[in-house]
Amino acid sequence: MLKLDFHPAGRHFLQIPGPSPVPDRILRAMSYPTIDHRGPEFGALGLHVLAGIKKIFKTEQPVVIYPASGTGAWEAALTNTLSPGDTVLMYETGHFATLWKKMAEALGLKPEFLGLPGVEGWRRGVQADLIEERLRKDSGHQIKAVCVVHNETSTGVTSDIASVRKAIDAAGHPALLLVDTISGLASADYRHDEWGVDVTVSGSQKGLMLPPGISFNAVSKKAIEASKTSKLPKAFWGWTEIIEMNATGYWPYTPNTNLLYGLHEALDMILGEGLDNVFARHERLAEACRQAVTAWGLEIQCADPAVYSPVLTGVMTPAGFDADAIRKVIYENFDMSLGTGLGKMKGGMFRIGHLGEANDLTLMATLSGCEMGLKLAGVKLAGSGVQAAMDNLTAKKSKPVLKVA
Amino acid sequence: MLKLDFHPAGRHFLQIPGPSPVPDRILRAMSYPTIDHRGPEFGALGLHVLAGIKKIFKTEQPVVIYPASGTGAWEAALTNTLSPGDTVLMYETGHFATLWKKMAEALGLKPEFLGLPGVEGWRRGVQADLIEERLRKDSGHQIKAVCVVHNETSTGVTSDIASVRKAIDAAGHPALLLVDTISGLASADYRHDEWGVDVTVSGSQKGLMLPPGISFNAVSKKAIEASKTSKLPKAFWGWTEIIEMNATGYWPYTPNTNLLYGLHEALDMILGEGLDNVFARHERLAEACRQAVTAWGLEIQCADPAVYSPVLTGVMTPAGFDADAIRKVIYENFDMSLGTGLGKMKGGMFRIGHLGEANDLTLMATLSGCEMGLKLAGVKLAGSGVQAAMDNLTAKKSKPVLKVA
Amino acid sequence: MLKLDFHPAGRHFLQIPGPSPVPDRILRAMSYPTIDHRGPEFGALGLHVLAGIKKIFKTEQPVVIYPASGTGAWEAALTNTLSPGDTVLMYETGHFATLWKKMAEALGLKPEFLGLPGVEGWRRGVQADLIEERLRKDSGHQIKAVCVVHNETSTGVTSDIASVRKAIDAAGHPALLLVDTISGLASADYRHDEWGVDVTVSGSQKGLMLPPGISFNAVSKKAIEASKTSKLPKAFWGWTEIIEMNATGYWPYTPNTNLLYGLHEALDMILGEGLDNVFARHERLAEACRQAVTAWGLEIQCADPAVYSPVLTGVMTPAGFDADAIRKVIYENFDMSLGTGLGKMKGGMFRIGHLGEANDLTLMATLSGCEMGLKLAGVKLAGSGVQAAMDNLTAKKSKPVLKVA
Amino acid sequence: MLKLDFHPAGRHFLQIPGPSPVPDRILRAMSYPTIDHRGPEFGALGLHVLAGIKKIFKTEQPVVIYPASGTGAWEAALTNTLSPGDTVLMYETGHFATLWKKMAEALGLKPEFLGLPGVEGWRRGVQADLIEERLRKDSGHQIKAVCVVHNETSTGVTSDIASVRKAIDAAGHPALLLVDTISGLASADYRHDEWGVDVTVSGSQKGLMLPPGISFNAVSKKAIEASKTSKLPKAFWGWTEIIEMNATGYWPYTPNTNLLYGLHEALDMILGEGLDNVFARHERLAEACRQAVTAWGLEIQCADPAVYSPVLTGVMTPAGFDADAIRKVIYENFDMSLGTGLGKMKGGMFRIGHLGEANDLTLMATLSGCEMGLKLAGVKLAGSGVQAAMDNLTAKKSKPVLKVA
Repeated sequence: MLKLDFHPAGRHFLQIPGPSPVPDRILRAMSYPTIDHRGPEFGALGLHVLAGIKKIFKTEQPVVIYPASGTGAWEAALTNTLSPGDTVLMYETGHFATLWKKMAEALGLKPEFLGLPGVEGWRRGVQADLIEERLRKDSGHQIKAVCVVHNETSTGVTSDIASVRKAIDAAGHPALLLVDTISGLASADYRHDEWGVDVTVSGSQKGLMLPPGISFNAVSKKAIEASKTSKLPKAFWGWTEIIEMNATGYWPYTPNTNLLYGLHEALDMILGEGLDNVFARHERLAEACRQAVTAWGLEIQCADPAVYSPVLTGVMTPAGFDADAIRKVIYENFDMSLGTGLGKMKGGMFRIGHLGEANDLTLMATLSGCEMGLKLAGVKLAGSGVQAAMDNLTAKKSKPVLKVA
Repeated sequence: MLKLDFHPAGRHFLQIPGPSPVPDRILRAMSYPTIDHRGPEFGALGLHVLAGIKKIFKTEQPVVIYPASGTGAWEAALTNTLSPGDTVLMYETGHFATLWKKMAEALGLKPEFLGLPGVEGWRRGVQADLIEERLRKDSGHQIKAVCVVHNETSTGVTSDIASVRKAIDAAGHPALLLVDTISGLASADYRHDEWGVDVTVSGSQKGLMLPPGISFNAVSKKAIEASKTSKLPKAFWGWTEIIEMNATGYWPYTPNTNLLYGLHEALDMILGEGLDNVFARHERLAEACRQAVTAWGLEIQCADPAVYSPVLTGVMTPAGFDADAIRKVIYENFDMSLGTGLGKMKGGMFRIGHLGEANDLTLMATLSGCEMGLKLAGVKLAGSGVQAAMDNLTAKKSKPVLKVA
Repeated sequence: MLKLDFHPAGRHFLQIPGPSPVPDRILRAMSYPTIDHRGPEFGALGLHVLAGIKKIFKTEQPVVIYPASGTGAWEAALTNTLSPGDTVLMYETGHFATLWKKMAEALGLKPEFLGLPGVEGWRRGVQADLIEERLRKDSGHQIKAVCVVHNETSTGVTSDIASVRKAIDAAGHPALLLVDTISGLASADYRHDEWGVDVTVSGSQKGLMLPPGISFNAVSKKAIEASKTSKLPKAFWGWTEIIEMNATGYWPYTPNTNLLYGLHEALDMILGEGLDNVFARHERLAEACRQAVTAWGLEIQCADPAVYSPVLTGVMTPAGFDADAIRKVIYENFDMSLGTGLGKMKGGMFRIGHLGEANDLTLMATLSGCEMGLKLAGVKLAGSGVQAAMDNLTAKKSKPVLKVA
Repeated sequence: MLKLDFHPAGRHFLQIPGPSPVPDRILRAMSYPTIDHRGPEFGALGLHVLAGIKKIFKTEQPVVIYPASGTGAWEAALTNTLSPGDTVLMYETGHFATLWKKMAEALGLKPEFLGLPGVEGWRRGVQADLIEERLRKDSGHQIKAVCVVHNETSTGVTSDIASVRKAIDAAGHPALLLVDTISGLASADYRHDEWGVDVTVSGSQKGLMLPPGISFNAVSKKAIEASKTSKLPKAFWGWTEIIEMNATGYWPYTPNTNLLYGLHEALDMILGEGLDNVFARHERLAEACRQAVTAWGLEIQCADPAVYSPVLTGVMTPAGFDADAIRKVIYENFDMSLGTGLGKMKGGMFRIGHLGEANDLTLMATLSGCEMGLKLAGVKLAGSGVQAAMDNLTAKKSKPVLKVA
């Protein structure tokens, strides 16, 4: 038997952009006894979480909950709406956009990968004008869907989804809009209905603060229509039967009961704090984090301030330093996990997660660990990021008058 | 916020044939903090559970663990090995065999459904001679796979898988053998390698005593070969990349970390008790349960004593009684959940689960609840099943000599 | 490191008359993070549990909660009200009454032990007329307190406390009335105010369904007055400072925060079910248990049906059998813990707890284990207690009409 | 029902000098099902924790574990060894020493309170020469015990206990040496046997990282001898019966089973890390904390560097500022609890706990919260304590050479 308490004394800091730290409240909720998923209590639970999750997606339309991790929800979005050989326009925002494209290929679709050249495309959000331009050329409507990533977890860029909707509409193109906000949901503002998204894909282990294991498809009427004629084989992922049975709070096959308990608790936490407060908290922490990176004299991976992510910040490491070696120094000295550089960015950056169960002091712990680790690793810093972050955080607080006498 | 503690005072008895009651030990293990699935500790955990689960399947070959519930593993078995339009020979043992067939159709396969006529087929195990006969006729080897259910959860019949293997071999047929032992694994003896199974499908929420949410494909070399040429689209379910990354204890996408903690604990419990002891315990409880049913004068759904299930017992209700109404009486009076009759058996039977976290006294509680509920519901019983079960259980114990003086 | 999961596969049945099985809900509540016991949240928690516990004692007067197990609350009742050398009239109901008397001696008091002769006193409740008689003789009022046990855990006798109050009043005696209901509270009806009790002693690990570790003194105005002049040294147990600080929800020293979380949950469970429903449930289970004992042809330890305990039932074992050897047979064969015979009853009886987290099916499991164990041990039973208990339980349920057609 | 999850989003920082943050591991261990404290498994648990706790006290002699919080263990030390009217020499190190003295008075002892005058005594450790001097004058050996606090939680001073032993010996005085290390144990080095302590008092909620609820008396042979003739009444606290029953791993009355599970886990964590490593970690964090305080230009409450506490650091607030108002600013803005100034120090200091489940990053979070809060509150800081602490922490780490090319 392996010992599952892996870490040294004191609290481990899990500061990757997901899985994010699971709050005690959610772990506790997950320990309720598993019940009969065909029994009367289950229906009450099912209806409750199905209603609550719609508020998080800001939708009045169905949200399908899968007993599977996020990659499955990607597959579900594609197989429910498309047919073998369909052309899909996918935008390259980074590593996860690339993996989704790879999946589309594996499923027999023909993805066309659009984006700015080289690394540059990974440092900026979706360029909606490129999408519009491409769709205008597609007079025959070969393109069946436009796929974009809302919050690119590999870089720290949060794209403007409304602008993509506008681009599709401006081009007068009937393509579906499929959006991955696996790492954006419940951390960054997201509006499934208002933005006219057809399928939104998300997962549990980021802003929802759950362990991995359940994932989501929020779907539009148009997407449901498409699912009726799409030809990719679908069974486990098929929306129809799930949505039908969800009407009474049940699923056609065994759901992930204990993670639904966790979802129930997460909804209570997030809606209790208020979605807007949750977003503001993420924005506040993200800004303080960026102030720190800038004070260090390091470059933020996202090159366009308009699309900085509130979820994570990518930090470019100076030439001559391997980012993963620095991460190792930090891990070994300060018991903190940071995200690695992925794909094209391998070795050249690390990622700081500041999402979900996060507040000012966990951010300060995180930035302290980074600053000390960078120094230990021999990186010359321009100044104290920790100081800059503290200045930034305190500047936003009201100052009480305390001095007496 | 919904209250998640649904039940009245005292312990709820979850006696359905899965999800089975999750032991405290496993719930506790599932509450370990979620870790970075790309970090060094995760690899150790991954290697540990991957090695352990092989012992449960009695295989030296790869076992793929999916972060998805059992229905997904059904899909995985089919999509990894087959191509659109392939003929598969599926044996009708009951409701779950029927659902698997329905899935094969949805995925574009051509299932041929074999079995005894009418309800009879649901009351007996797989008739291997019928399979052999059918395969002998398939001289052109159109049939690409034979699919059977080991432990049919809808009825309580545990088929003889070795006989199916022999039938295929006797027919000299190259078809793959795909077996569902979702509800059999870790409760009934199962031998993936010895029985020459190509893909074994299983899930977490039965004999493994976990909540639903992870599922399995144990695969043979022949199955892996087949996966290289099979044409059904596959991405999330694709074996190749998973098996490749499993070599170091990782997964290509986010695994269900906290359920893997639970699996780690379940392996420790099951292998600690000893697989053979686990099987013997299930057999002992199942026999006592059947003695009870017989004493009540009710019929056991499984009509062939050779294939009685050690996992659950199906109880036929007398004419004039709706089994679900009886279940409701039991649920409301004794806070116990029993399995409903499914498909062809709807209303005519209920199912008693005696698997996983089960012992003599939980069985006696269960049988007492059934006996009292049947009486309350007005069913005339021939005798006391509870008494018969106690007699049966005590007959197997050694009798100490205690009388003094 | 010891493995703390001591038991074999399946659920252990803890059927001793306390500690009683702790519900999952309470264990979960106990896992909330420990907070600053001087911080603002603590006060809210403190006020909440202090208000709730009064309802359980049926009192409007202070209930002192100690961060100590029940024996400490015995000591507190004595040291707060009495002075060295004081005479106290203690009634011998059984082993725990005897231990309390032993404690009084250790503290320098002069206990006078009243009761029926021999074993007989242990089989009947407090005889109030003996108390009245004795007090009438004490014209000099040397007796400062009358001490009785409400629910004698060693035997299964629940005495009539109101009759003791009447006896004291009838004698016109000023002695304080101190009552131990450690194992009675929240299982058997108890009325601190209505019965005119001066100090009621209780603990957490019985009807409150908590682990051991907190205990109680409910106190009357007269008791508080007595505490002001009593001379036994008191610091940790001293009421004054605790009651004073409790006004705002705090304690003078560090309270047992996590058990107070558990108490909060227990109050929610008990008051949610309704105290009267809780008592009725205990009465129902106790009666069914006694029917079983009678059907076995064994003798119930409590010889007076008017004072049968709803909390536990003492079972006399036939001559020639050592009760502890039988308990061992049951423990080893059925993984169930029963209470041993204590003091005068050592070897001649065992005790079945049916309190707290108990319902019909846990009782049936318990009785099945006893019946099978008794048979294995060679005890000749007159009939099936399990059958008798089932008959008793079903007789109290409404019978639905289910037969169709 | 009150909601027990009191805190806003993100992790609360409980940085008081106890109760210290309880690690998940311990909360999980505390959720094992309560067992029969008279059953066979309990003895194994009892023996295990009784053996382990001796290592923490560095003693071969008995350690008595009480199911009561720390104040009870103070009382136990006094009542077991002393008689009414006995003179005890108690040293005034701070608020807790004062409370212990108050308790001695309440119990009918005659404490003589020794110490440096005014606030000065609260800022320095025990002056052993004063003790020696006083004992030399006590030629009639009226003084029966010398009572000192090892780690004074109200100030952050860790006294030299060995020097007290030497002083007593030098004076050739037979007084017992009673030491309170409630907040020192398992954080600061402590040697019950080597230092010749007669009774060491400790509790669970500090270095042992448990919730409050169990407490300890480590006792010498001389103390046990004294207990045989001491006249203070004792029952619950009495050592004799407990030590006797502990021989087989049991207690005379109901122990706090679930906290003993927690103790079992705590022992595994602490002895697993190694006591010396635990102490070194505390020293490292304490030094970094003091560097921060100094950099802020604030005064450390402990005026003698030789006795700085590794457990907590007292920070003096500048004239004109109420320390509790600053604590409130920090609590409300940064969700962090700090210790208040107690007794003579009320309003003039706050206390930072850095004990138990603590590491570099939790300390940095803590110091960041203090620094930001002090600034918000309008305190002029001389420099960045956070920077100083980071410099201090990194200076102690080995610097890897990472630069490539």
